[in-house]
Amino acid sequence: MEIISSADQGKTGIVARLKSVFGRLKAKAADVGKGMKKIGQDDPRIIVHSVKVALALTIVSLFYYFRPLYDGFGPSGMWAVLTVVVIFEFTVGATLSKALNRGLATFLAGSLGIGAEYLASLFGEKGEPIVLGFLVFLLAAASTFTRFFPHIKKKYDYGVLIFILTFSLVAVSGYRVEKIIELAHQRLSTIIIGGATCMIISIFLCPVWAGEELHNLIALNLEKLATFLEGFGGEYFANSEDGKSAALSKDDQSCLVGYRSILNTKATEESLANFAWWEPRHGQFRLRHPWKLYLKVAVLVRQCAYQIETLNGYINSELKGQGTSELETKIEEPCTRMSSESAKALKELASALKTMTHPSAADIHVQNCKTAVDDLKDALEAFTLGKSDLLEILPAVTVASILNDVSKCVQKIAESTHEISDLASFKRVNSMVAPDLKLQLLHRGSVKPIAAGGHVVIRVHQTSCSDSPEDTNSRAKKAMEV
Amino acid sequence: MEIISSADQGKTGIVARLKSVFGRLKAKAADVGKGMKKIGQDDPRIIVHSVKVALALTIVSLFYYFRPLYDGFGPSGMWAVLTVVVIFEFTVGATLSKALNRGLATFLAGSLGIGAEYLASLFGEKGEPIVLGFLVFLLAAASTFTRFFPHIKKKYDYGVLIFILTFSLVAVSGYRVEKIIELAHQRLSTIIIGGATCMIISIFLCPVWAGEELHNLIALNLEKLATFLEGFGGEYFANSEDGKSAALSKDDQSCLVGYRSILNTKATEESLANFAWWEPRHGQFRLRHPWKLYLKVAVLVRQCAYQIETLNGYINSELKGQGTSELETKIEEPCTRMSSESAKALKELASALKTMTHPSAADIHVQNCKTAVDDLKDALEAFTLGKSDLLEILPAVTVASILNDVSKCVQKIAESTHEISDLASFKRVNSMVAPDLKLQLLHRGSVKPIAAGGHVVIRVHQTSCSDSPEDTNSRAKKAMEV
Repeated sequence: MEIISSADQGKTGIVARLKSVFGRLKAKAADVGKGMKKIGQDDPRIIVHSVKVALALTIVSLFYYFRPLYDGFGPSGMWAVLTVVVIFEFTVGATLSKALNRGLATFLAGSLGIGAEYLASLFGEKGEPIVLGFLVFLLAAASTFTRFFPHIKKKYDYGVLIFILTFSLVAVSGYRVEKIIELAHQRLSTIIIGGATCMIISIFLCPVWAGEELHNLIALNLEKLATFLEGFGGEYFANSEDGKSAALSKDDQSCLVGYRSILNTKATEESLANFAWWEPRHGQFRLRHPWKLYLKVAVLVRQCAYQIETLNGYINSELKGQGTSELETKIEEPCTRMSSESAKALKELASALKTMTHPSAADIHVQNCKTAVDDLKDALEAFTLGKSDLLEILPAVTVASILNDVSKCVQKIAESTHEISDLASFKRVNSMVAPDLKLQLLHRGSVKPIAAGGHVVIRVHQTSCSDSPEDTNSRAKKAMEV
Repeated sequence: MEIISSADQGKTGIVARLKSVFGRLKAKAADVGKGMKKIGQDDPRIIVHSVKVALALTIVSLFYYFRPLYDGFGPSGMWAVLTVVVIFEFTVGATLSKALNRGLATFLAGSLGIGAEYLASLFGEKGEPIVLGFLVFLLAAASTFTRFFPHIKKKYDYGVLIFILTFSLVAVSGYRVEKIIELAHQRLSTIIIGGATCMIISIFLCPVWAGEELHNLIALNLEKLATFLEGFGGEYFANSEDGKSAALSKDDQSCLVGYRSILNTKATEESLANFAWWEPRHGQFRLRHPWKLYLKVAVLVRQCAYQIETLNGYINSELKGQGTSELETKIEEPCTRMSSESAKALKELASALKTMTHPSAADIHVQNCKTAVDDLKDALEAFTLGKSDLLEILPAVTVASILNDVSKCVQKIAESTHEISDLASFKRVNSMVAPDLKLQLLHRGSVKPIAAGGHVVIRVHQTSCSDSPEDTNSRAKKAMEV
């Protein structure tokens, strides 16, 4: 009896264990499903890209599969399949870079391989493998070494890889295959077929241009900085006034630290700029668009993000006193103005980049920011310690000082954006605003017209912190302020 | 005559142009030569790596070349060559990751491909290409999509690529090649031969371990932070005293900003940690060394570098007055102490990491730093403005405040390093110092023994700012302080 019951227990145990395994598998599958959905929703272009790759691969595979084409190329047809899988990348620039690298390297290495084969054959049957082995060794070592050159690593890394590969294959296989030139010709043709399929699908079917990505990324990063600076003044001084933290909701706070992603975008920006170099003229971008200048702006934007990261530490600093110090009351106005004017300038710059118009609308905000800096200096000069001591006002003084650094950085960003605008000849906006646009604006925000001077202030309540596609309002405002 | 002279001129022109072209080519070649020499000198392991790749490739090529082996594997031998070129990477971890990914993916996709082939054959001659095309499309789209999953992108990206490649090749080629299983078997064997050659050479011939690289990189970054903090106090306050900048030579200044490379190491660190995951036990590192904790320290180190970047802006700030303000005189001592004690703590942590000993020697410096912070607070509380105004003392106050942040960050770094030490069970150093080591130390630095208390100060003049291989001295100092 005991034996049977223990066997029963064993069975129940197995069933329970199987159930738990299935339960975990189900939960895991649900997780994966959610993850997939999120990726697809975050960037639907990933789904489009997957379909594009599958399409190119199916076309080339069927091309390989059907007899008439197969008879022409022999088993070399597989190189077309291989080429598609390996070179199809997310952006057009990356695909072009790999396709051209692969094509050129195959041609070069193929020719050299045939030469090596010929040279080695002069040494007789015994000398041939030694000479070939020596040549392969030499070229492989030299090519691998060149892959560490910064310039080659950046643009031609893949080409060098394919060069070594093809050279070895051609040089060594020559001994066996009699019709080496025919084989090389077949292989090159199939690679060209595969490469061309990729390039055509990549360029003409919902293309993702690396240049445009870089352009948008820089504009987005400018906006992220602006979002922080826009909120900072209110957040820091609101804290002081209430004597407690969290004046903003959690959502708004995560908006505020959106700039953090900028801290680590260097690699992305550089590879995008690198791929953009390979791209033909597209949309509003000429063939020689000043991509290098974008990197210059990117460096300054990152510099600004570092300062903001330090600044952010002071929002909920424990060093800060509970109430509002006398100094905080005095510098609140100029500091908030510095912060918000810098934010406005950055938003104008971002919008100018996005719409590829001259960023002259940012100039007034840069100027306003300079005035605010002067006001801050006056306030600091006039301040006497009174009852408070230096330790108490330490955070406020530090915030003022770093904000000053940030505003200088914003000035530099404005200068560099002007440079891009000049080199890429962004269009200058007309100072006249079309009447219907003006009317539209009156309905969109609260406009407070001033009789003389033509300086118009428009307030629009922005609620979303996500990258809004286009800031029509700021463009219009710019037109009015010019 | 005129015609001849113009022809002569043309000739002279061509000669001159050729000369200039050759001159430029020569200069270019000299540049490239210099570049090569520099790369080789900076990291001789690159040369070793090139030779290793060439060796692996030559072995596999000759294996393909010689008839007896060739007869066994047929043209599939080329897959061995291909495998070597594609998977041989700089670090052992990267090579293993690629080799295992490639082997597994080929096996999986090959099996699935044969299955697909069988399934399609059930649909008759007309249905077969349609079913096969559909299957290739489906799998290619799904696999490409999974490449965007963060976890898969990190560890199995290459495997998925090879999976798509092999599946397409097997599924589509099945129609032609009768002996598909034999072919798949041949291909897998040659890939295993290529992969094994790479792995063996990579592991046993001057291996470069990704884990060790990460370990050293983190230690080096700690030292770079320390170098800045060590120099900062002197540099900032020396400026104030002299009323002019550049108390340090240019070389020293470039030493000081060595921390800048830390700002952008995130990608390198993460890929190294990822490759380290694939590596077997080596040297002092167990199989499950806590590589993830290294990334935690890396995040804190970068945080510290951001603050230091802001701090660095104040060394030659224009805001700073010409002379030494009263405040600067008052806070110079605690600030310099905070900075130098933080630097000492970081150096101890770096040395503890390098030697894999318990970082208890850093604790006293962290404690000293906390005392310095308290002293600074006292100095600030006791300060009255007197003749100077707030604008004048702005930079000094900001520097003090950011230094306080930095010292907090150093504390966190120390805590995380303790965590690594506990998890990886770093050895605790004995408080007794071997007599011969003590003697050795007496000859290496100036040792000032104190009669009671056992607290020994050792000063060694460091002249180089490059990554010194191992700080024996600081290890010994630690042993004495325990």
